[in-house]
Amino acid sequence: MKKNLIKPSILPGFMELLPQEQEKFNDIVNKILDVYEKNGCLSIDTPIIERANVLLAKTGGETEKQVYSFKKGKNDLALRFDLTVPFARYVAQYYNDLVFPFKRCQFGKVYRGERNQKGRYREFYQCDVDVIGKDKLSINNDAWVINLASKAFKSIGLENYQFQISNRKILKGILNELKIDDSIEVMKLIDKYDKIGKLNFEDQLRDLIGQDKSKYLSNILDIEGTNEEILEKLVKLDINDEYFLKGIEELKKVKCTLGILGVEDDEFKINLKIIRGLDYYTGTVFETLLIGNERYGSICSGGRYDNLAENYTNNILPGVGISIGITRLFFVLKEIGFIEKYSIKSKLDYLIIPIGDTLEYCGMIMRSLQDKKYGATIYFDDQPLKKKIKYADKLGIEKVILVGEDEVTRNEVKIKNMKSGSEISINYKEL
Amino acid sequence: MKKNLIKPSILPGFMELLPQEQEKFNDIVNKILDVYEKNGCLSIDTPIIERANVLLAKTGGETEKQVYSFKKGKNDLALRFDLTVPFARYVAQYYNDLVFPFKRCQFGKVYRGERNQKGRYREFYQCDVDVIGKDKLSINNDAWVINLASKAFKSIGLENYQFQISNRKILKGILNELKIDDSIEVMKLIDKYDKIGKLNFEDQLRDLIGQDKSKYLSNILDIEGTNEEILEKLVKLDINDEYFLKGIEELKKVKCTLGILGVEDDEFKINLKIIRGLDYYTGTVFETLLIGNERYGSICSGGRYDNLAENYTNNILPGVGISIGITRLFFVLKEIGFIEKYSIKSKLDYLIIPIGDTLEYCGMIMRSLQDKKYGATIYFDDQPLKKKIKYADKLGIEKVILVGEDEVTRNEVKIKNMKSGSEISINYKEL
Repeated sequence: MKKNLIKPSILPGFMELLPQEQEKFNDIVNKILDVYEKNGCLSIDTPIIERANVLLAKTGGETEKQVYSFKKGKNDLALRFDLTVPFARYVAQYYNDLVFPFKRCQFGKVYRGERNQKGRYREFYQCDVDVIGKDKLSINNDAWVINLASKAFKSIGLENYQFQISNRKILKGILNELKIDDSIEVMKLIDKYDKIGKLNFEDQLRDLIGQDKSKYLSNILDIEGTNEEILEKLVKLDINDEYFLKGIEELKKVKCTLGILGVEDDEFKINLKIIRGLDYYTGTVFETLLIGNERYGSICSGGRYDNLAENYTNNILPGVGISIGITRLFFVLKEIGFIEKYSIKSKLDYLIIPIGDTLEYCGMIMRSLQDKKYGATIYFDDQPLKKKIKYADKLGIEKVILVGEDEVTRNEVKIKNMKSGSEISINYKEL
Repeated sequence: MKKNLIKPSILPGFMELLPQEQEKFNDIVNKILDVYEKNGCLSIDTPIIERANVLLAKTGGETEKQVYSFKKGKNDLALRFDLTVPFARYVAQYYNDLVFPFKRCQFGKVYRGERNQKGRYREFYQCDVDVIGKDKLSINNDAWVINLASKAFKSIGLENYQFQISNRKILKGILNELKIDDSIEVMKLIDKYDKIGKLNFEDQLRDLIGQDKSKYLSNILDIEGTNEEILEKLVKLDINDEYFLKGIEELKKVKCTLGILGVEDDEFKINLKIIRGLDYYTGTVFETLLIGNERYGSICSGGRYDNLAENYTNNILPGVGISIGITRLFFVLKEIGFIEKYSIKSKLDYLIIPIGDTLEYCGMIMRSLQDKKYGATIYFDDQPLKKKIKYADKLGIEKVILVGEDEVTRNEVKIKNMKSGSEISINYKEL
């Protein structure tokens, strides 16, 4: 009477983990969220499904094609493709109930019908922080959100990350100075710099804006040195365009405040090639590379925008935000061997194993341990002792408590240390 | 240049909270998950979107109509409508990599296109625990999962809940004894008991199985007394059907183990009217009522099933599980005034307010507090002092640190206690 079975599998582009890896994933998320919350972010949650016209208010082209949208009854619905659009809607909707500057963090799944390839996910977690002001927002917040990312990475023991920071105003000012009409095409090209490489970039730039200007611009993009030196060299260009000057001023301020907040100078690098797409950011922009593993691209990005929610409200809401694609980050951390070494302690400190008819005594032991805030459970099922011990071993439980009838008679417990293999018997009150 | 704004709103049947309530929601979830994990559950996560044929392997009728399903490319997709079906698929898929008995907890959103009414949600969080055995699973686990629910409720300070426990085998045995052919119809009717009321129930039962049998069955369902007394009265019925005897034996065992695990006798009540639908459970079944607020229905339900994943594998996987509909629970807890009184501490212990040009000193203070694991942030924006203080007040931050230029000169900080209004100045090293 064998029936037709359905093959148990998930869709391509979706991440699913075994319990041991899931525990590490959760630990990473909890540590990052803890950093955010202890630095004053309020955690919010928004629906995954929203009205299509709300979610797609701003997008078009590529993004819209990737969106999961469908009808339910008469409604056109869509799954959120980032946490920023729902957040913009949220701030506009509850504007009068929120306290500004509003520092929010949000962790949740988003959906994009990406082309199927390794390390690209169609369902993935993002973890965002944004600070939103009413009408204005201090540039110090730009440094603050980057400082949060730094603290988040440190909290999980990640090193070798480096923030690549720029300010869009600087490039805008340079392009103004060069009297380049088609600045959008130039920006798009710079955005592709890392993909196409220096030589291709320079060829295409020359085609776009001619020999002299392209030489001038390339030289600026290639400025090397310490952050201090890069800023000095930029100032010495003697460009007087107001965007350029404003951009330099902001970038200096961000650099200074990063230091004040404890971000070391070698954690970040000024890099004018950072653009972060086109229609969103207006000032500070940044990405985060893993030094030595740059090929994986940015693991945390963000920047400053002038007005968060212009599609939903006439209130002016400038802000600055960062986003970590946690699912993608986890994939990268697996690839580079970080996850394998990432060690966490089982939340279950004790596995209590009854031998014979000692369940009642085991219950008392369990309650006594839990009163002391230890993690503890009882192995209930009828199995050979060896199998029960192996169970603890497989789950990484450090201590096993063996309770036979002798132990009950003597008010004792036998504790087996799973690492050393040693066993000691003590009075249960000494636990 | 006013543009067309899109009204910022969410779909009906979706819950969204303001930050203050969200903090309480998150605190409740974290406490419940902490109980589960410290009792040995491994937390897993599965995709929200799966292949429609995988998710709908078992369902039909009402459930299927409620499912959010759609096409993306050539694929028929659906949003999960519970956490049990994806879990069944997960266990079948990773069978060889899992350690049995597998105790898993899972927290996540599920989707059902319910009729729109107050307190019913189309997107809602569930928080499930299941224990799955290979081929067999001790009845003690049935008590253990109920004990977890008890601990979960205690962890959030909820009282007045009462588990209503039955065992489906008992009723099955009684119906066998009565030689009732259409036992499914009788079960369906009992399942509706609370909805239709005692009198309607008895009328309909008589129509179904006749005067004598209906009288006999009603009397059994109405047995009152302590749990001990109810069990005694059931035994005295002198029914010899094997299901009945097995059911009584299991229920006795569950009652006994509940006591051993620390669940008090008044936390649960044997109630033979508990059915929990038809095609799923095979032994222990339970619901949880809020005494005095029974009208809200069950806030946590579950039971024992013979075979979790029969649609996906030929392995026999008996299990027992519980599920809390957290979104619905939060709604109920709001309705009964529990959430309003539910107090949590802001994770931000200190708000540091620079007065004048003292940002660098404030940065040092912030880092020093954070090194000591306090939550702390700086108010960066240029606002009147009064407004900055009000910000701390609105967010429930208990302590504000005021740093003017005098404080910097004297290496001091001025701490304002927001509750008492008192201010003290101390050396920053004494913080």
